[in-house]
Amino acid sequence: MTHLRIVFLGTSAATPTRSRGLSATAIQRGDELLLFDAGEGVQQAFSIAGLGLNRKTKVFITHIHGDHTVGLLGLLQSMSMAGRERPIDIYGSERVWALVREGKRILGFGLTFPVRFKKTRAGVILDEDEYVVRAARSEHESDSYAYCLQEKDRPGEFHREKARSLGVPEGELWSKLQHGQPVSVKGKRILPSQVLGSKRRGRKIGVSGDTRPNTSLTKFFKGCDVLIFDSTYGDDQASRAVENLHSTAREAAMLARNAEANLLILTHFSARYTDVSPLLLQAGEVHPRIIAATDQMAVDIPYPEDW
Amino acid sequence: MTHLRIVFLGTSAATPTRSRGLSATAIQRGDELLLFDAGEGVQQAFSIAGLGLNRKTKVFITHIHGDHTVGLLGLLQSMSMAGRERPIDIYGSERVWALVREGKRILGFGLTFPVRFKKTRAGVILDEDEYVVRAARSEHESDSYAYCLQEKDRPGEFHREKARSLGVPEGELWSKLQHGQPVSVKGKRILPSQVLGSKRRGRKIGVSGDTRPNTSLTKFFKGCDVLIFDSTYGDDQASRAVENLHSTAREAAMLARNAEANLLILTHFSARYTDVSPLLLQAGEVHPRIIAATDQMAVDIPYPEDW
Repeated sequence: MTHLRIVFLGTSAATPTRSRGLSATAIQRGDELLLFDAGEGVQQAFSIAGLGLNRKTKVFITHIHGDHTVGLLGLLQSMSMAGRERPIDIYGSERVWALVREGKRILGFGLTFPVRFKKTRAGVILDEDEYVVRAARSEHESDSYAYCLQEKDRPGEFHREKARSLGVPEGELWSKLQHGQPVSVKGKRILPSQVLGSKRRGRKIGVSGDTRPNTSLTKFFKGCDVLIFDSTYGDDQASRAVENLHSTAREAAMLARNAEANLLILTHFSARYTDVSPLLLQAGEVHPRIIAATDQMAVDIPYPEDW
Repeated sequence: MTHLRIVFLGTSAATPTRSRGLSATAIQRGDELLLFDAGEGVQQAFSIAGLGLNRKTKVFITHIHGDHTVGLLGLLQSMSMAGRERPIDIYGSERVWALVREGKRILGFGLTFPVRFKKTRAGVILDEDEYVVRAARSEHESDSYAYCLQEKDRPGEFHREKARSLGVPEGELWSKLQHGQPVSVKGKRILPSQVLGSKRRGRKIGVSGDTRPNTSLTKFFKGCDVLIFDSTYGDDQASRAVENLHSTAREAAMLARNAEANLLILTHFSARYTDVSPLLLQAGEVHPRIIAATDQMAVDIPYPEDW
């Protein structure tokens, strides 16, 4: 069981409002933090959310626009002031790297830890023991990406009574079977499949960044347990969404329905909406499970079998 | 009568806390806004304070460090999104200009209004009809400055009864005298000095930026009605203040006392102090009129004769 929590650090599009900061979404997974975008204000949002500046952290930037990136500079500086030594990985376009590199040069700051830049490309960009992160081109600017965190399958449930009935003594041999290795008991070979249920799917979390909805993203987000999607506009600004390469809340819901995403979380609201409940209602006509994000909202994500 | 209000937009040093953003102080003077520093988060603080993105605005940057400058990028972008056309003047070192220029290039944004960069040098950097702004080298980094806004003298009080007794009819001739021009009434020349009290001093507001206290700054801030001064540390961190080229609250108060500043406002508190009241008490042992700034605190500043 690895705890997974999504914390919304900034949910406003383009310009902040009194109550919403600029784009940043954190996924806390066990002792690790995956940060998607880092708009201005993210370091204060970190402090309010109590996320900590020294934990194992990876940053994924969807695109270079300032409202998604400018907070990187202060976040790195604050991590340095907190004495961080652990490296940090930043995934993004070359221009994201230019922002960090030139920002450091012009502002004249050094860091107490290494920043490892990884250029985002479509496909698997990170393959860890327990999860992968994939990127796909989004439809917003020339070098913009959506991301998807997918946990690897976990072993099936261990049937203790079955193991006992097959004469396997509790202890080391149980552990081997639980980890997928066959064992021998009194000359008899016992296979993991005899005592384990079928493999259990991990969680899949999609983060759209700024984008128009399209069929390739629908495919990319197929079967997401949680999809966090650009909902800049309501129905009233549908043509503006096309023009500015964003989505309406209703379009986000249509994509989520087509992708069979279990839960859709709307975010990145235009500052024109002081009340986003109409957007929630519009999306709700299309998809049954929708939340409108607010700054500092935290959502714990159970395993698929526990929904 | 020109209304003058100081609004504190960010009062934390180096790194923001849950309740304090990074350095930015606005002086609203009539319909004009003078902004001193623009740390990360300033555009949201603008929004919360209701300062408006389209007003006549001048920005004065004390030094290049990121916690005083990074918010410039988002502020300019938000002004652009608000359709600003009015130019904005930014005073600072060459590196401040590099931040804006390179930030625009890397983030790929254009602006709907001209940004006029003015290099800060010691001396009078701005001479307007009603006020001047002076800069002085501060003691923090190689190109750091303190600023002082000084209103020009206003004409003395107009003695209506005196004017009447001299036979000057109310109307155009009164106005001329009030504006310092002599008039003729029935062949008799009347001088402004005959109907006006002595000139009245304008307000003087000092903004230290980050600095050690020293005698040249004491001189620069001489007679300030309000002095806003670096108070990063308390007595407990006096040696750190020397080391990091900042001031303690007590040192700020000593400088304010020696400069005969009427009101001292402490700001730029280290994030280590969740409660700054000890700093206020330490400073209060030295100077009788002290306020500790908080984010969004607004202070209306009367004319000297109305204190």
